[in-house]
Amino acid sequence: MSEKIVLAELDADLQAAVAATRQKVADLHAELPRWGLVVWTAGNVSERVVLDGVPTALFVIKPSGVSYDELGTDNMVVCTLDGEKIVDGTPDSLAPSSDTAAHAYVYRNMEGVGGVVHTHSTYATAWAARREPIPCALTMMGDEFGGEIPVGPFALIGDDSIGRGIVETLRGSTSPAVLMANHGPFTVGKDARAAVKAAVMCEEVARTVHIARQGGEIHLIPQDLVDRLNDRYQNVYGQH
Amino acid sequence: MSEKIVLAELDADLQAAVAATRQKVADLHAELPRWGLVVWTAGNVSERVVLDGVPTALFVIKPSGVSYDELGTDNMVVCTLDGEKIVDGTPDSLAPSSDTAAHAYVYRNMEGVGGVVHTHSTYATAWAARREPIPCALTMMGDEFGGEIPVGPFALIGDDSIGRGIVETLRGSTSPAVLMANHGPFTVGKDARAAVKAAVMCEEVARTVHIARQGGEIHLIPQDLVDRLNDRYQNVYGQH
Amino acid sequence: MSEKIVLAELDADLQAAVAATRQKVADLHAELPRWGLVVWTAGNVSERVVLDGVPTALFVIKPSGVSYDELGTDNMVVCTLDGEKIVDGTPDSLAPSSDTAAHAYVYRNMEGVGGVVHTHSTYATAWAARREPIPCALTMMGDEFGGEIPVGPFALIGDDSIGRGIVETLRGSTSPAVLMANHGPFTVGKDARAAVKAAVMCEEVARTVHIARQGGEIHLIPQDLVDRLNDRYQNVYGQH
Amino acid sequence: MSEKIVLAELDADLQAAVAATRQKVADLHAELPRWGLVVWTAGNVSERVVLDGVPTALFVIKPSGVSYDELGTDNMVVCTLDGEKIVDGTPDSLAPSSDTAAHAYVYRNMEGVGGVVHTHSTYATAWAARREPIPCALTMMGDEFGGEIPVGPFALIGDDSIGRGIVETLRGSTSPAVLMANHGPFTVGKDARAAVKAAVMCEEVARTVHIARQGGEIHLIPQDLVDRLNDRYQNVYGQH
Repeated sequence: MSEKIVLAELDADLQAAVAATRQKVADLHAELPRWGLVVWTAGNVSERVVLDGVPTALFVIKPSGVSYDELGTDNMVVCTLDGEKIVDGTPDSLAPSSDTAAHAYVYRNMEGVGGVVHTHSTYATAWAARREPIPCALTMMGDEFGGEIPVGPFALIGDDSIGRGIVETLRGSTSPAVLMANHGPFTVGKDARAAVKAAVMCEEVARTVHIARQGGEIHLIPQDLVDRLNDRYQNVYGQH
Repeated sequence: MSEKIVLAELDADLQAAVAATRQKVADLHAELPRWGLVVWTAGNVSERVVLDGVPTALFVIKPSGVSYDELGTDNMVVCTLDGEKIVDGTPDSLAPSSDTAAHAYVYRNMEGVGGVVHTHSTYATAWAARREPIPCALTMMGDEFGGEIPVGPFALIGDDSIGRGIVETLRGSTSPAVLMANHGPFTVGKDARAAVKAAVMCEEVARTVHIARQGGEIHLIPQDLVDRLNDRYQNVYGQH
Repeated sequence: MSEKIVLAELDADLQAAVAATRQKVADLHAELPRWGLVVWTAGNVSERVVLDGVPTALFVIKPSGVSYDELGTDNMVVCTLDGEKIVDGTPDSLAPSSDTAAHAYVYRNMEGVGGVVHTHSTYATAWAARREPIPCALTMMGDEFGGEIPVGPFALIGDDSIGRGIVETLRGSTSPAVLMANHGPFTVGKDARAAVKAAVMCEEVARTVHIARQGGEIHLIPQDLVDRLNDRYQNVYGQH
Repeated sequence: MSEKIVLAELDADLQAAVAATRQKVADLHAELPRWGLVVWTAGNVSERVVLDGVPTALFVIKPSGVSYDELGTDNMVVCTLDGEKIVDGTPDSLAPSSDTAAHAYVYRNMEGVGGVVHTHSTYATAWAARREPIPCALTMMGDEFGGEIPVGPFALIGDDSIGRGIVETLRGSTSPAVLMANHGPFTVGKDARAAVKAAVMCEEVARTVHIARQGGEIHLIPQDLVDRLNDRYQNVYGQH
């Protein structure tokens, strides 16, 4: 995919799907400061563009180093699955998030993932600084994560190591969240909204279990009960 | 009560009482995010419908999996005391909270309870993860709870076990709050507003006593003094 | 002062002073939720009415059990220094805060105090639950409190014991704040604004010193340096 | 610089540069309460006035003891590099922040510094109360600070000791933040926005590392990896 892709030359249907995704991703970024998951310009949300129910080779992500007040549909960046920004996209002047390569790697390597979120949310990042998984001691953890939240390897930004660490840790796990060592949580979902929800819940359980353990010994939930919680929640909860 | 009840066929006075209750319950849901008790779509408030001062066989509760921004009078769900949604109610498309069975069980089994609230508020849930009651070390705990806040059993969602655990723990207790093991607090009150207040105070005392104990040994208040605080508060405080 | 005082029969100048004080006290109540010092209807601010620079026998305080959203100039309650509500005051239906007797006792017994604030702010109340004074480890504590924040006795509501405990603890102290045992902080000031500021600073230093000590041993500031900070701050800081 | 400088007598270009700087500094003050770094009137931001790319002998700073709600372009104070307020500046009635001498000392002694921020943000101040540097355990610390955040000496307000302590601690460090003992953080940057960002990040890492360590042993990042993070972040991140 080294040839340049020009947004205005795309099929009209695909352009419309891109526009709708940019709107969704811009709106979802507001959830990160709202739930206290980010400071300054940290954190990012992306979503793969879907056309007629089929995932395309494009995704939309936050621009790099722009403050949350200034984020809007117009400055969401469109990228190909190898993380290259599409040329002539609006706005042509903004670079995608410095975490774009990690998002792209996840889309290329995890089937069914349509959204990715990264934050440095405080309590989740604190567990990451100890490289300690969050044990499953809450029914809401059973619901959302199906067990402990695992820790990924230490990886430097700049190549595929972060993306590879995410994928290798989450593959075969029920958890949509991974704590990258000394760095912070990445979450995945069927779309960006699901990944944002996982990021919100990840911080909440990181905080609650931390506080629980500060006060004494916690009771873990046996895995067979966790499985029943997770199964019910993934299949029954919400509006169907 | 397995025959279907249709909202539009109810007596006009009862329909008016239902409408007023939906308004109150919708408004009270705003208090949960306001006081930081919930994230995403977690938590729920219900109130029993009262007609001419007499509790009816209906109550109103939050729909399942709907975000706090979208909650309004129109999407509050009307249920019978066995937790069945009333058909043809507005909005007919929404399922009631997944905690509806627990609320219904409480209304069927605790006389005088007109409101129920459930949250996963952080500090209360942290005590619940240790299955440790919150000791009474604050005058405001004496006022509102009349002693320690007790812990209920571990129970899975899906049948009456949560409701039964709440009722068995609160029966004979002065506390309007119970910490369900590894799950979170449920609170009751004469109406939904009183149950919301208990939920707010439960989190505040859970937080304050946790922090107090992190710093060293706390002073408990002797039970006879707690009784005097509780008696005065329940009978004198506020506007009468 | 057992004869009833009627607001509308007071001298016109005094009525104007009362009205101005009600405005100030209503406005200052907004600072308590703003800085996170109160939940639900807890907490209260009062200010002594001053006429031509001379403190009168009246003060204004929050009504009992009214939520912060509903507080306004119209429902601030006017009381005499023995804590009796003035009859025919607007609104005549509201009872003054249940802490009114404590405020009144302070005004009767501490010369120069023109404002009193009471909260259950979390960290200050946590120190109070351990009955432990907050040691002076921060320059901002030296500035505002001139040393440690002392602990007052355990006292039940209902007579003069709370007021007496406040006055006996603060008399001869540089601190405008006292932590009443198992209860929470009371602060005083030359007017209500100064007492609110002391309440805000009290919680902030309670929180900061708590967190500091959780991480290891703190460095106290020697008293001679604290005295220099306090002296400078009380006499130089701000706009003069 | 003991002769009085009169704002209205300055060159028109310099007056315009002063006005633009006052606007920026007023706006940036809103970031301090927004990110929870200050209570009441504490904290201050300053920026050196730059004309045609060349730093001038003037800087703009917050007035002393004014609440954040009342801060605006009109009451930002213009000072010379020795900390003297410019006469006839608007508003002529306000004194500059009591920390002005420290800011001025930094501008006189650190080349390339165009903005300075001071707060008493809770977690950073807690480390300062222990006089303990914040160890580098987070990739975002490597990015922004290039290593640990150092502690400066204990210094009283009133002469050059605070400014000298800041400069001596930061000279030769990659960190734009210093924790002044028992006092709080000061941060520097190429302009005021960079210094505000450093203040926000300083509190966030102070909080995250504190919480991480409360839960057990943390993993430090080896200095060679920190250097790579810092180098990349300072040269690649953001929009260029």
